Amino acid sequence: MNFCYLEKEELRMALLFFLSFLPSLSSFSQTRPRELGVPFGILPTGPLNAITDVNGLKVGHFTKVEGENIRTGVTGILPHGGNLFQEKVPGAIFVGNGFGKLAGVTQVQELGTIESPIILTNTLSVAAGIEGAVRYSLARPGNENVQSVNALVGETNDGYLNDIRGMHISPDEVIQAIESAKPGAVAEGNVGAGTGTVCFGWKGGIGTSSRKLPESLGGYTVGVLVQTNFGGNLQIAGVPVGEKLGKYPFKDALEKSDGSCMIVVATDAPVLERNLERMAQRAMMGLAKTGGIASNGSGDYVIAFSTNEKLRVPYSNPSQALLTAEFLGNDDMTALFLAVIEATEEAIVNSLFAAETMTGKDGHGVEALPKQEVLTWIKNNK
Amino acid sequence: MNFCYLEKEELRMALLFFLSFLPSLSSFSQTRPRELGVPFGILPTGPLNAITDVNGLKVGHFTKVEGENIRTGVTGILPHGGNLFQEKVPGAIFVGNGFGKLAGVTQVQELGTIESPIILTNTLSVAAGIEGAVRYSLARPGNENVQSVNALVGETNDGYLNDIRGMHISPDEVIQAIESAKPGAVAEGNVGAGTGTVCFGWKGGIGTSSRKLPESLGGYTVGVLVQTNFGGNLQIAGVPVGEKLGKYPFKDALEKSDGSCMIVVATDAPVLERNLERMAQRAMMGLAKTGGIASNGSGDYVIAFSTNEKLRVPYSNPSQALLTAEFLGNDDMTALFLAVIEATEEAIVNSLFAAETMTGKDGHGVEALPKQEVLTWIKNNK
Amino acid sequence: MNFCYLEKEELRMALLFFLSFLPSLSSFSQTRPRELGVPFGILPTGPLNAITDVNGLKVGHFTKVEGENIRTGVTGILPHGGNLFQEKVPGAIFVGNGFGKLAGVTQVQELGTIESPIILTNTLSVAAGIEGAVRYSLARPGNENVQSVNALVGETNDGYLNDIRGMHISPDEVIQAIESAKPGAVAEGNVGAGTGTVCFGWKGGIGTSSRKLPESLGGYTVGVLVQTNFGGNLQIAGVPVGEKLGKYPFKDALEKSDGSCMIVVATDAPVLERNLERMAQRAMMGLAKTGGIASNGSGDYVIAFSTNEKLRVPYSNPSQALLTAEFLGNDDMTALFLAVIEATEEAIVNSLFAAETMTGKDGHGVEALPKQEVLTWIKNNK
Amino acid sequence: MNFCYLEKEELRMALLFFLSFLPSLSSFSQTRPRELGVPFGILPTGPLNAITDVNGLKVGHFTKVEGENIRTGVTGILPHGGNLFQEKVPGAIFVGNGFGKLAGVTQVQELGTIESPIILTNTLSVAAGIEGAVRYSLARPGNENVQSVNALVGETNDGYLNDIRGMHISPDEVIQAIESAKPGAVAEGNVGAGTGTVCFGWKGGIGTSSRKLPESLGGYTVGVLVQTNFGGNLQIAGVPVGEKLGKYPFKDALEKSDGSCMIVVATDAPVLERNLERMAQRAMMGLAKTGGIASNGSGDYVIAFSTNEKLRVPYSNPSQALLTAEFLGNDDMTALFLAVIEATEEAIVNSLFAAETMTGKDGHGVEALPKQEVLTWIKNNK
Repeated sequence: MNFCYLEKEELRMALLFFLSFLPSLSSFSQTRPRELGVPFGILPTGPLNAITDVNGLKVGHFTKVEGENIRTGVTGILPHGGNLFQEKVPGAIFVGNGFGKLAGVTQVQELGTIESPIILTNTLSVAAGIEGAVRYSLARPGNENVQSVNALVGETNDGYLNDIRGMHISPDEVIQAIESAKPGAVAEGNVGAGTGTVCFGWKGGIGTSSRKLPESLGGYTVGVLVQTNFGGNLQIAGVPVGEKLGKYPFKDALEKSDGSCMIVVATDAPVLERNLERMAQRAMMGLAKTGGIASNGSGDYVIAFSTNEKLRVPYSNPSQALLTAEFLGNDDMTALFLAVIEATEEAIVNSLFAAETMTGKDGHGVEALPKQEVLTWIKNNK
Repeated sequence: MNFCYLEKEELRMALLFFLSFLPSLSSFSQTRPRELGVPFGILPTGPLNAITDVNGLKVGHFTKVEGENIRTGVTGILPHGGNLFQEKVPGAIFVGNGFGKLAGVTQVQELGTIESPIILTNTLSVAAGIEGAVRYSLARPGNENVQSVNALVGETNDGYLNDIRGMHISPDEVIQAIESAKPGAVAEGNVGAGTGTVCFGWKGGIGTSSRKLPESLGGYTVGVLVQTNFGGNLQIAGVPVGEKLGKYPFKDALEKSDGSCMIVVATDAPVLERNLERMAQRAMMGLAKTGGIASNGSGDYVIAFSTNEKLRVPYSNPSQALLTAEFLGNDDMTALFLAVIEATEEAIVNSLFAAETMTGKDGHGVEALPKQEVLTWIKNNK
Repeated sequence: MNFCYLEKEELRMALLFFLSFLPSLSSFSQTRPRELGVPFGILPTGPLNAITDVNGLKVGHFTKVEGENIRTGVTGILPHGGNLFQEKVPGAIFVGNGFGKLAGVTQVQELGTIESPIILTNTLSVAAGIEGAVRYSLARPGNENVQSVNALVGETNDGYLNDIRGMHISPDEVIQAIESAKPGAVAEGNVGAGTGTVCFGWKGGIGTSSRKLPESLGGYTVGVLVQTNFGGNLQIAGVPVGEKLGKYPFKDALEKSDGSCMIVVATDAPVLERNLERMAQRAMMGLAKTGGIASNGSGDYVIAFSTNEKLRVPYSNPSQALLTAEFLGNDDMTALFLAVIEATEEAIVNSLFAAETMTGKDGHGVEALPKQEVLTWIKNNK
Repeated sequence: MNFCYLEKEELRMALLFFLSFLPSLSSFSQTRPRELGVPFGILPTGPLNAITDVNGLKVGHFTKVEGENIRTGVTGILPHGGNLFQEKVPGAIFVGNGFGKLAGVTQVQELGTIESPIILTNTLSVAAGIEGAVRYSLARPGNENVQSVNALVGETNDGYLNDIRGMHISPDEVIQAIESAKPGAVAEGNVGAGTGTVCFGWKGGIGTSSRKLPESLGGYTVGVLVQTNFGGNLQIAGVPVGEKLGKYPFKDALEKSDGSCMIVVATDAPVLERNLERMAQRAMMGLAKTGGIASNGSGDYVIAFSTNEKLRVPYSNPSQALLTAEFLGNDDMTALFLAVIEATEEAIVNSLFAAETMTGKDGHGVEALPKQEVLTWIKNNK
């Protein structure tokens, strides 16, 4: 490590900053790190390398970039395309660091199910997120008599680039995010709930990745979606990128690496809530591999669920009718744990590669990660 | 127990129902059970026998009774009269049964502090509660740069008497509840967040009580406020009231005793968050003594905090400046545990004695507890 | 449920009541409170009113009363009669107050299964308990290659009557308790792990009770076994016995009501670990109804498991072979919660009625509860 | 921090690198990875780069290598040199994966204190560990009347190299480990509780490391000691060693990477139990950076405590005497979190570098990590 040539480095960064406005560079955001040769573990990805590789799952973004000061949005994840309240999915939540406002935690932990779209947005728009998710749920055909909905709304704080105190997200915009959800490729970077986020001092955003286990290990898919807004000592594919680029915690005894990361883990594997919680816990291990440190001010939460159709929990189960389930035992969980770790690490890096330089509130600017340099270093570590 | 004379009992209840409309009966709601001779344990109460016996604490209600169908409201509790965000109080939360939507849980558990007014309302108005608490906090002088507020919003489901799907609480009404908060006697029964609640099959509502430890045990005050909306096998001062009145779980194999109870525990004792959580856990033991069973559908949460001025956590503590505290050790907690149990039991019974018969949505009616009979039985048990 | 043959029952209860005044005190330990007319809720008991009403479950006691100073023992509970390690049962643990040494907690919470006999003993003999349970498990046919056993060993502190520092329980004596386990009636009072315990200032011990749900609610059985060694403000069937007898917390500002209560909850209902944990949590509500306060120094733990044969988890499940289960959903849990509360309350009172006056270490003596007085008061409260 | 004398450092590291190819393998166990040029983050170490850099802390090993089949031992950690029961230290435990038998968890979580030496040993010797720690504690001068000791005994399963079913550790040997504890350099590798462990398919063992925060961040020391016996996809200083060496999870669809890791985190920083728990949680993030995956069968636990003298909790605090403390607020925790992550990662790698090839039970052999190859790759990644 050589931290002494800062003049040169500053020069380089200034250059990169100007280059980042050139149109050709934006092509980087179409080419994902894996395609650029960044290695991420040993398990293969699903076809899209996205959370939507989990069959039936849908993602929608609402992005709000207005004027100088509004840089925010909403991302909605629907575990399946049907009526979630009537056909709940087994779910769990792990709290990596609870400096955050995730709504809906205790009911998921108590009952083991998720019954509404998962909403990600900014810290001060959780109320809008809940109202949107509740209004959406109440209005679904079949829910006419429903009087209680557990909305699951996570957030990170985009207040550096976004006028967060303006509370610019409305419940209707949350519903838009939900209703725009679709299967297929997921937009990454400065989009939806990732519009205004910052990660390791670079522009963060939405990222996603997946793993597909070999058939001998069940053939299941694990998908991860992240909203990256946290700090630490960035490491990509094992390369100490933060140190090499001179952005690391406490460099000047002031930087506190705060921020947050919302992580959503989905699988089609038949996993009940207790083991989903264990999977959720492993996502923080994937975050750790990127150099995240779950700083004091970071709200790091993992929401995990199974979309497996045979594990759905009907709202209107007749009294005393037993639920039946076929599910994986503890001994078969390890491959899924590894899949979560790998997909989380990759999803975070994907968010950094997809995010583009942005200016926002009060003229604040956040640069995109200098991908070319990073790629060069990574090449040497393989 | 004799359950066979139901004709006679039905007749009696019909009579009581009509009697409940007579004005003289409403005087019951002014006279609290303790004054009527109902015994509640061994510790003395504070002067008001209310959560506001805890010095500096303020309570405000916003009650909304409109037309045939709106029977709901908001209750706000301010741990102290200053700027809560700038001067946080140590706090903790215990989840008795997590079928509920309490917002703000994980941050309190992670950081050990409460930084906003505590809001109670109905299940589908949690979003309004958060938005109101956040807007209130952002607007407080001194909070101009605050970009993150952990609103603590609990709820119970008043959907039997209230058109809950109408989401009739607005953020402004939440702020009204907060701003109307004051020290002194606390209105109980059909008021604030207790306006439309049902408890043990009778009209529930807001209740409060307190205990003042003898000086030899520290002289501290413990106050409890409850929003009662739960079921079970009602027992008052040890008398099996539910069985005697023929209202108990599964009487007809359908009654599921669902509902919820929000419990707020305050103390001036110097207690840090770990021991506050232990105090919170004991509140469920007080609930148990009333016959509550924390049924599957019950959202039973306890929020506990200390108002002790020496334990306040300043938002703007300089980096590396140590916090100093003087606090009670584990060995001195038992008397506070007992105080929580006793005050919770009494607060719940107080809510039942203060609540009056109400009709609401779709013509649904819920009777007040037949207090005279209950008092007769209790007299025999002393 | 048929509550209508009360004339006959009232006659029987009146007779039992008068019988209860007969001088032969030892007969009291044979006649249980329920038979003496003490009421305990609304659900019927199983045939033995004991944890062994749960089919297949076995209980064994090893009692050690030697010389002046040894008053201790071991109680072993076997969820089923087969090889527990090879056929694990779904299990859960709730910590009512963690001032105790229960071994084996985290593995049950992580994996959701119990794989060894449950051992109760005194605080300083937990090591002997573990070694006994491990040696027993290793020696079972079929376990020749087992290298890891999660022993579940709870304790309460019998050091007032017993020379606990002498550590008088050996692993062999633990194995004796296990090997003597049998179905059928369970000895209560000064036996096994309850030999030297003290409860509410009176002699405590082992107690047990059960509930059998009506067929309309599934017909399941819930059994509870307790080792009572805790304090508080004793209440029996709603009567404030502690206050009436002048034994209650802080009476002289010194009594701290410390001690502990181990509670084991068993059911044949098909309940998985998450809902078993919820059942376990309710046991503390039953304890609360007896006046227990979970004082600072009390180690109050609840171990719950299902003996349902279809939920057994085989140790040697082939890789990728799905487990199949039929189990109760959340909505059907409430009746089981009520059963746990009622059976726990009754089991604790049973322990007090069965325990007899004992003298032990250093001449310390603890009297049995004065049952006649208590029964008189209870009669008035019905 | 001064990173600018790199020429000298680079020279030293190059020298060390060449030295690392010298044949005398045993010298490797004396030369630690950091000295060989392996980088571990940005914070400086303490003088010993060991948990004993935390002032007053003592570590003792008892190693048992006998005949062909016994390869096990005990490691004892004393938070301070006084009477731990009389002067408890604030402590916390985080469960990374609860497939393990750590004794003493719930009392630490409930009361926030550690009152006995921390013992590490093998899975089936936890009983011996408890008995040893209890006997040691009862025998300490001043503890003559103590009747309750919460022994904290962790384990990993050394059954591949050790005849674990033989239960070859005695309570006396545990006491030997405790009594041999001393400050100063800590032996690593095949010693004490690490004697027979396996890590990432290579010989594991005991490892230790420390961090010393710069004065601007408080100047505190964080020390970590690990007992490494777990699996995953080994990564050292970012290099995918596991993949390069062909040892990684599921390589042949059978390897499950099971095993366990016990982690002890000590600090002299004034941190109370809630924030100690948060520090403990971060240790799993350090483990993740080595490629650990917390597989299903892994018992991964972190015990954290503060040795800060001003936070000691006296056993004999007079009733109602307030405890006083000066402690770090949440906002100052981030640097300590980073220190835990870095020291844990380094301690694990240290254990791998110190451990030597071993043969044991049934002729099983486990090779030491091929350090030369690893060092070559690491050089390329810097």
